Amino acid sequence: MSMTDDPTATPLPLSIRMQRGDLFSEHCPSREVLKHVTSRWGVLVLVALLGGTHRFSDLRRKVGGVSEKMLAQTLQWLEGDGFVDRKSYPVVPPRVEYSLTPLGREVGEKVEILADWIEFNLPRIAKADSPL
Amino acid sequence: MSMTDDPTATPLPLSIRMQRGDLFSEHCPSREVLKHVTSRWGVLVLVALLGGTHRFSDLRRKVGGVSEKMLAQTLQWLEGDGFVDRKSYPVVPPRVEYSLTPLGREVGEKVEILADWIEFNLPRIAKADSPL
Repeated sequence: MSMTDDPTATPLPLSIRMQRGDLFSEHCPSREVLKHVTSRWGVLVLVALLGGTHRFSDLRRKVGGVSEKMLAQTLQWLEGDGFVDRKSYPVVPPRVEYSLTPLGREVGEKVEILADWIEFNLPRIAKADSPL
Repeated sequence: MSMTDDPTATPLPLSIRMQRGDLFSEHCPSREVLKHVTSRWGVLVLVALLGGTHRFSDLRRKVGGVSEKMLAQTLQWLEGDGFVDRKSYPVVPPRVEYSLTPLGREVGEKVEILADWIEFNLPRIAKADSPL
């Protein structure tokens, strides 16, 4: 995060100040984005949505073990960051669909590379040698 | 995680059963590895160690905001998974150095791609538009 050191200087527009985040810096907003994207359920929701649009109940079924509350919270985070698009249809019963935005697809692809690596390499990882 | 559906079948050796993890499956051990690697501090420790061997105090200085306790916990997780190598030298004062194993370097590179994307794209992410 590039900030001026002079506290009396006129603040630069956010668009200039935030040319690049810095995850090593405690107060950089990139930390919050990282938290959403790498949260326990964020990873799985992003990877699931790479497969296409899902209704809430479909996502809940796919992501084993997620509670309704945590799935709703995760989707809200990802929507707030501009990664997920929520479409609500005025029908009875209500229908709500979630899909990735183009930005969400970009970050989802990076997350999927990591998730794939872990799944594929599980037998090489020490943890896999201990009893289940 | 590939498991047989027949509960009466003789369990296959772990090495066969665990040919690939399945993060969508609630009880797959890959979930635990994902948790360590994508934990708040796990990401930053892996990226820092890609830069080379660090002493505990160097890591703590680099990773802004981490407590001694959380850094120790994170390093223990990553060591347990076989991603981090801990070397202790019998000198006074004690010297302990942390570095990535070859496996840790592999996963660290995937994590760094994601971290880089977030830092670089922060200005495009909705969150960055709200006041700091």
